[in-house]
Amino acid sequence: MEETKELLRYAFQTDYEVTFPVSAPGSAGMEICFVNLVEFGDKVIICQNGVFGGRMKEIVDRCGGVAVLVSDTWGSAIDPDKVEEQLILHPDAKILAFVQAETSTGVLSDAKTLAEIGQRFGCLTIVDTVTSLGGSKLKVKDWNLDAVYSGSQKCISCIPGLAPVTFSSRAIAKIMQRKKPVQSWFLDLNLILGYWSSESKRTYHHTAPINTLYGLHESLLMLKEEGIENAWTRHAQNYQALKAGIEAMGLHFKVSEAQRLPQLNAIVIPTGVDDLTVRNRLLYEYSLEIGAGLGDLAGKIWRIGLMGYGSNQKNVLFCLEALNSILKDLGANITPDVCIDAATAAYEKQEAVELG
Amino acid sequence: MEETKELLRYAFQTDYEVTFPVSAPGSAGMEICFVNLVEFGDKVIICQNGVFGGRMKEIVDRCGGVAVLVSDTWGSAIDPDKVEEQLILHPDAKILAFVQAETSTGVLSDAKTLAEIGQRFGCLTIVDTVTSLGGSKLKVKDWNLDAVYSGSQKCISCIPGLAPVTFSSRAIAKIMQRKKPVQSWFLDLNLILGYWSSESKRTYHHTAPINTLYGLHESLLMLKEEGIENAWTRHAQNYQALKAGIEAMGLHFKVSEAQRLPQLNAIVIPTGVDDLTVRNRLLYEYSLEIGAGLGDLAGKIWRIGLMGYGSNQKNVLFCLEALNSILKDLGANITPDVCIDAATAAYEKQEAVELG
Repeated sequence: MEETKELLRYAFQTDYEVTFPVSAPGSAGMEICFVNLVEFGDKVIICQNGVFGGRMKEIVDRCGGVAVLVSDTWGSAIDPDKVEEQLILHPDAKILAFVQAETSTGVLSDAKTLAEIGQRFGCLTIVDTVTSLGGSKLKVKDWNLDAVYSGSQKCISCIPGLAPVTFSSRAIAKIMQRKKPVQSWFLDLNLILGYWSSESKRTYHHTAPINTLYGLHESLLMLKEEGIENAWTRHAQNYQALKAGIEAMGLHFKVSEAQRLPQLNAIVIPTGVDDLTVRNRLLYEYSLEIGAGLGDLAGKIWRIGLMGYGSNQKNVLFCLEALNSILKDLGANITPDVCIDAATAAYEKQEAVELG
Repeated sequence: MEETKELLRYAFQTDYEVTFPVSAPGSAGMEICFVNLVEFGDKVIICQNGVFGGRMKEIVDRCGGVAVLVSDTWGSAIDPDKVEEQLILHPDAKILAFVQAETSTGVLSDAKTLAEIGQRFGCLTIVDTVTSLGGSKLKVKDWNLDAVYSGSQKCISCIPGLAPVTFSSRAIAKIMQRKKPVQSWFLDLNLILGYWSSESKRTYHHTAPINTLYGLHESLLMLKEEGIENAWTRHAQNYQALKAGIEAMGLHFKVSEAQRLPQLNAIVIPTGVDDLTVRNRLLYEYSLEIGAGLGDLAGKIWRIGLMGYGSNQKNVLFCLEALNSILKDLGANITPDVCIDAATAAYEKQEAVELG
């Protein structure tokens, strides 16, 4: 347990004492942050540029908090200026919550800048890093993030079922000063910390999913052995190769280049091509599953995940080849049979750069 | 998913439509029942004869419910007469909650009778079957239980991390009529049912711990192949053999015979023997872990679990031999070197009965 906590601190790039995996999926990671930090009447500024901002609002409502939504277009990053405007309008806001990496759209927002703005206005920050942890630059301590949650099954390559979380001392101080008990017994940090405290003081709280915890320990060890910066670079490089292949085919990314998430690639479905036909053929002919668009983007984008162990050259080339083959067969308006060469060239260029 | 739901209905002995595994440990199973069924101001009669009744009260408090405790001595079954008295005193009670099998004390309460009393007074019943499911007779449909939860890691032999639950149509009707949303987003049945509904209508709610779900499917299949009545009998037979050995040694059970749980055996620690010394020697010399007493029973009992796959002849004999050896070595006041013969004789007697 101590090793797992220490390895998680490395993954989160922090030294926060309260860092451990919640015994439930990432959704419970979101909930544990809100139910512990939000008290009745607390105003929470929530940035919404995809599915998960909306979920945050639902949880704040159920905590008796007052949610103020700052909405951006799905497929765009959170606009820091809009956030600042709302914080000026709501000086009584206590918490700023946002998603660093929106899985539903493939967008990376600037967590560092958003957290700075929040702090300037005296807000604690709750940050969703479900898809970013291990895949995109994340510096919990340097960026002074306060309550950060993730999932075990994305860029850290463990099986699903655990939600790594980390809390700053500022966040813990607010929780300790709560007037009412946390509404969830299962997710009450005061109780869970008895279980995940230092070795000599541990007390039973619930039966943890120990097999999954051993899996997480190994996944985190693999991340440490690779080196977190190397993991971020690997995700970026495989994205670059996928991008080279996708663009050579004549397809386009939904998200503007500066805001793209390397581990979740939103590709615009070409005109005249049926979303489900392509996804089903990928699944049944290639055993390859890519994500559908969600909400307003349903039927308009495909989401190609290159996360954790899955972010590797073999997968990039296999996915490009499969897409090329199916789109060509369907008579789609693409440039066929060039994507593999383009992706391979991208990898060779990266190697040349690395070799100096 | 459909197979898992159907196999769970078999394990629970019910045909309730809403039967599925919650993506979190048994503690979340308890919480999902209470947060969905208890609305602000609802009076809940809670039977407390061990650790888990107390936990129920904590959750009811956090739901804004009014908890009325009916307390029995730790180590005794819930007294149905006391429950009836409280229901007469509190005709406005809406829910009766109790633990069928108290893991903290090794006591089996009469779920059928308690549920009948609850129904007579118009109460829905919430029943903890964490330790009983698969190990002790449980007939959810015949007994008209309303919200029943369990854990994956006890008598159904899966790894920890899932909480099987089943809800009657009466329970679902109460949930559908709630005035306010369930306080937990993660445990809101209205949302989770979208995920576990029939195949054509499934919608994303959270990322389920699929590896553990495959494990549960296999565990439930093994239970079905054995036959649930055979599993109950097996648990009873291994308890009988353990009992023969324990009593031959001159040790005693904490719980009176009629109320004993075959899968959780509370043994009184003999005078002059140090609890921790024995448990540590079992652990380090035999790789055998037995449970400590909890609460008032700490230092006074040992808890020997014979659950699921673990309830087998090899384990019973190994545990008796190890206990015999350590207690003899410590000079405890026992009859040494007779327990194996006594347990073996018990098994032979059972075989003879089975062979007619």
